[in-house]
Amino acid sequence: MARINDHYRKLQAGYLFPEIGRRTRAFQQANPGAELIRLGIGDVTLPLAPAVVAALHAAVDDMGRADGFHGYPPEQGYDFLVDAILEHDFKARGVDLDASEVFVSDGSKQDSANIQEIFGQQCSVAVTDPVYPVYVDTNVMAGRTGEADAQGRYAGVVYLPATPENHFQPKPPAEGVDLAYLCSPNNPTGAVATRDDLAGWVDWARAHDAMLIFDAAYDSFIQDPSLPRSIYEIEGAKECAIEMRSFSKRAGFTGVRCAYTVVPKALSGRAATGERVPLHGLWARRQSTKFNGVPYIVQRAAAAVFSPEGRRQTAEQVAYYLENARRIRSGLEQVGFTAYAGEHAPYIWLRTPAGTSSWDFFDQLLERAHVVGTPGAGFGAAGEGFFRISAFNSHENVDRAIERIGRAFGG
Amino acid sequence: MARINDHYRKLQAGYLFPEIGRRTRAFQQANPGAELIRLGIGDVTLPLAPAVVAALHAAVDDMGRADGFHGYPPEQGYDFLVDAILEHDFKARGVDLDASEVFVSDGSKQDSANIQEIFGQQCSVAVTDPVYPVYVDTNVMAGRTGEADAQGRYAGVVYLPATPENHFQPKPPAEGVDLAYLCSPNNPTGAVATRDDLAGWVDWARAHDAMLIFDAAYDSFIQDPSLPRSIYEIEGAKECAIEMRSFSKRAGFTGVRCAYTVVPKALSGRAATGERVPLHGLWARRQSTKFNGVPYIVQRAAAAVFSPEGRRQTAEQVAYYLENARRIRSGLEQVGFTAYAGEHAPYIWLRTPAGTSSWDFFDQLLERAHVVGTPGAGFGAAGEGFFRISAFNSHENVDRAIERIGRAFGG
Repeated sequence: MARINDHYRKLQAGYLFPEIGRRTRAFQQANPGAELIRLGIGDVTLPLAPAVVAALHAAVDDMGRADGFHGYPPEQGYDFLVDAILEHDFKARGVDLDASEVFVSDGSKQDSANIQEIFGQQCSVAVTDPVYPVYVDTNVMAGRTGEADAQGRYAGVVYLPATPENHFQPKPPAEGVDLAYLCSPNNPTGAVATRDDLAGWVDWARAHDAMLIFDAAYDSFIQDPSLPRSIYEIEGAKECAIEMRSFSKRAGFTGVRCAYTVVPKALSGRAATGERVPLHGLWARRQSTKFNGVPYIVQRAAAAVFSPEGRRQTAEQVAYYLENARRIRSGLEQVGFTAYAGEHAPYIWLRTPAGTSSWDFFDQLLERAHVVGTPGAGFGAAGEGFFRISAFNSHENVDRAIERIGRAFGG
Repeated sequence: MARINDHYRKLQAGYLFPEIGRRTRAFQQANPGAELIRLGIGDVTLPLAPAVVAALHAAVDDMGRADGFHGYPPEQGYDFLVDAILEHDFKARGVDLDASEVFVSDGSKQDSANIQEIFGQQCSVAVTDPVYPVYVDTNVMAGRTGEADAQGRYAGVVYLPATPENHFQPKPPAEGVDLAYLCSPNNPTGAVATRDDLAGWVDWARAHDAMLIFDAAYDSFIQDPSLPRSIYEIEGAKECAIEMRSFSKRAGFTGVRCAYTVVPKALSGRAATGERVPLHGLWARRQSTKFNGVPYIVQRAAAAVFSPEGRRQTAEQVAYYLENARRIRSGLEQVGFTAYAGEHAPYIWLRTPAGTSSWDFFDQLLERAHVVGTPGAGFGAAGEGFFRISAFNSHENVDRAIERIGRAFGG
């Protein structure tokens, strides 16, 4: 008798973005004339950079020729991409990694979902709250939690509220926790960790023999060169942190699919026998058993992001979105909203009007301004009373959205 | 204290193909002049079909234009691909499926590795032996087995030997087992299941409330139209089977990455409460939480496989490999080997010379003929004494390999 994984039944409602899609479609069906502006899901809108398009065409031609055809990709990625990653994302910031420590993948969502598999089921988990739902849901599915309470908090997970009072940078928990998920620049709050913030986490992790899972999918939005882009810029992090990066937001690859995860060889966890076991071999085994690599053409496209033209063109795209973020934040503030972030991230984190729940504000914004955003409560209990607005759209649509919000909510 | 997933420590040696790579590299370093012919890993060698190349170029152009750009793909695949799959892979064979039952993915390896996640940890697992290692290893990682014995058989897994005596089609087990993995045309034996073989499995699964996981990654190699390509051609299979298909072997997509899994809505498993829970919702939740879709350009390429030119061109590729298989089998038989399959699959399954283990034969073939194959023991204990030779190479290399084998092993 085939039994299901009963842990799935603890999961709350639908995953956030399908639920937003459902409400949006229902509104559109009821209001076929309304023209929506989407500032909800964090999906890029600018076309691929010319350097990337050129690399894709060249790689497609390779695949059509006997002497250029590429079959199964190397399990951790082609050298031409891994070497470019090491050079530009790490060496340029003073971080030395070995090529074997980089695992190219088809997305940071996948990597941050899959990484928990190499850890024991008894591991306790800490997340900042609000949080990217994947970190929590994948641990629920794996059976590391109990049931959810009325606010959607799962028993056994340590939630660290990120609030205006702590500048959205919660401190490490007092108790010993085994795995802690961090994301900077943060999705959804847009807050960015300083070197001191990250050093506090590294010190804590080393003191408690805990593992940090550091998601830097938005690192390219960091504008202040003194802010850390990689956790490995912090002394000691190679002994306690796994890091994830993505091409999705830095180069508009949400529909192209490329990312990577760094698992330093110095990382280890403890086995039931008490032995310390390197995590690198466990993740290599996980990937070689359950993954078959990233398409050759996609890896060529990702490598082109590091070419001189690729870097210039994708930096222009990031600047374009950050200009949107500036306009959104200042527009919202002019209407009287309290808004945070948007300087080093493509997200504005907004306080909803007093007494309005974040899902109610989602519905109001949709109905009164025909603008789609993301309710903070969808990211966790501490997101209630907040709302995420994404900067991924055209300047024109952003200006129109701000104007509509001004009319709908301004005095 | 971060604890590791101790189940990983039960896994035997390296995953098969990395171990083959290691031995092959070691041989090459020791014999830099030797020119190897690779008939080992099941990787295609012909360049992509012109219809596929044209579709890729067109899709790349779309991605470079504001009005053609595509961000995050729909979670289960674009309609243009799913509709083509339904039409050509199912309706044409008399099988009606709903579009929502198809989940487009980046590989059958991934799908067959991940599918076990939606089942309870207490589920017992049956596999044919020899077997594609992913089915077993992913269940070991999930903790559904005990330790391996000296032959590499994990405690708790039901192994069903596929032997010349049962025409490599083992019957369902007498005991009740919860999940059974089937693969036809089979990797590694190349054997193909008849309608009667599959009907036997469907009857058994329905009688025991078991779930079949049917891997049809090689279906395009089936030449006899009376043989089933989909398990859903068998009455009742929609109530007891999940099916996986791939573009890897049918269209040379091993480096392009596209596949799909069918989870019929009629499938269910039992919860701890005794309730029956549809598997479709569980897999949809798994994919929407841990996966982010297949690149737009790759889905356009896969859809082009179904165009009239795409079907003609990819059928020619399959015929090319099957001609290789014919030459290999007849060449081996002329040298005196006992060889099986190769008619409806790109694999020849060979008996090793009496008293020679399959890894020893791997080394002999490498050293004496400079040919790389795959030892049967790498696929399970019942693969000992057998050897897999793949038909993925050029006619010229196949002829040279056969000639070398004749010289090295003939009389």
